[in-house]
Amino acid sequence: MTRFALTLEFDGTPFYGLQRQKDGPSVQQAVEEAAFRILGEEVRLHSAGRTDTGVHALAMRSHIDIEKVIKPFRLMEALNAHLRPDPIAVTHCETVPDDWHARFSCTGRSYVYRIVNRRAPLTLDLHRAWQIGTPLDHEAMHRAAQALVGLHDFTTFRSVHCQSDSPVKTLDRLDVERAKTPWGEEVRIHAEARSFLHHQVRSMVGCLALVGMGRWREEQVAEALAARDRQALGLNAPPHGLYFVRAIYPEDA
Amino acid sequence: MTRFALTLEFDGTPFYGLQRQKDGPSVQQAVEEAAFRILGEEVRLHSAGRTDTGVHALAMRSHIDIEKVIKPFRLMEALNAHLRPDPIAVTHCETVPDDWHARFSCTGRSYVYRIVNRRAPLTLDLHRAWQIGTPLDHEAMHRAAQALVGLHDFTTFRSVHCQSDSPVKTLDRLDVERAKTPWGEEVRIHAEARSFLHHQVRSMVGCLALVGMGRWREEQVAEALAARDRQALGLNAPPHGLYFVRAIYPEDA
Repeated sequence: MTRFALTLEFDGTPFYGLQRQKDGPSVQQAVEEAAFRILGEEVRLHSAGRTDTGVHALAMRSHIDIEKVIKPFRLMEALNAHLRPDPIAVTHCETVPDDWHARFSCTGRSYVYRIVNRRAPLTLDLHRAWQIGTPLDHEAMHRAAQALVGLHDFTTFRSVHCQSDSPVKTLDRLDVERAKTPWGEEVRIHAEARSFLHHQVRSMVGCLALVGMGRWREEQVAEALAARDRQALGLNAPPHGLYFVRAIYPEDA
Repeated sequence: MTRFALTLEFDGTPFYGLQRQKDGPSVQQAVEEAAFRILGEEVRLHSAGRTDTGVHALAMRSHIDIEKVIKPFRLMEALNAHLRPDPIAVTHCETVPDDWHARFSCTGRSYVYRIVNRRAPLTLDLHRAWQIGTPLDHEAMHRAAQALVGLHDFTTFRSVHCQSDSPVKTLDRLDVERAKTPWGEEVRIHAEARSFLHHQVRSMVGCLALVGMGRWREEQVAEALAARDRQALGLNAPPHGLYFVRAIYPEDA
């Protein structure tokens, strides 16, 4: 048995999230079925994070255990061939020690959330970003975000379906910037933590957007956090602006 | 009669190009039909450039003449509402003098061509860039490109369907760079000229890609140009990597 670490990029639009679902197609199911067609083995995909319907990944880290002898490059090429036409790509593949675990060894996760701040509807960025017509004060959003950085009880920003043992998490970074793109500009929110609660990033982004639009005072973000009550949440941002960017492991240091 | 200048952004994937076609949907038809539904007037859309099936635009400039009295902002909002669900957006709208012409007043056009240089297939950039698995030497591509800058007979890089009176054009810029994106990097080719021949940018990009892959010597680009023969063309790059970026007018100076 050999353990292979995979780096996955995917467009989340057609999937019911990364993990297997009874209701519809998932990234996990697509990768496991592609592996079965290649290897004739039932494999199980373990991943650093979970993502919801419509959420994208730039470099999700996952692993599978394989009995058959195969070279990582061959496996990567075969998976990419068998994953077509699903919008999932294996961008890196390597063997790892048996005690390396994509989820349990992971010590950090980072996300980016993209907001295109303009009146006109999206065309090339459709399903790739959240379009907000009201001008956003990104500096106010950044200031308000700092109240969430650090060790807190994030109950307000937690989905009712969250399976985490505790709502207490340490948020390492929540930066808001107005970034230039080759074709214009966008507001980007960068979030980093060891782990996140279910819907935490989208819930935080939703409240920051209210601040940016002037519908919430900056202090209301801190007040919502202190309330430790889901009812204090202002808004959950839509999934299609969210990207899982990177999983960090001790050996990366 | 009032003349309105429109700035259009569109995803070229579902269209048979910008200009009206007998065979299938076009951006021009979509905008003209949206205007008819709003105004009850048959209008004709004139644009700075023509684009092929699958080619995108970030800021195409166009104009329409309207009898009815309407404010530019109202027109923009109504067009965007009536263009749904077509991936076309009016990002700017203003009134212009009657002698301003989107095509004939335009003194410069710029394009960008995006190449994602990796083995793995595209997911989020599917239909948005050209994927090339062979490592590209972008510096060799840039050096080779400089042979095309200036006043030349571009017959080699001209489609047989080109309607231009002359194959002689002045290319002002053809730069190749490896650019960072928030999620990785890509090779970008920037082309600027007063005007281009049909397929000129894609033909030039195709030959530069051959240089980048090491299948052509750098000098072969200059040799292909000097041949003034379509048979000397190495490769026509696919349309989905090409973006019309900007139209330039005297008043922009």
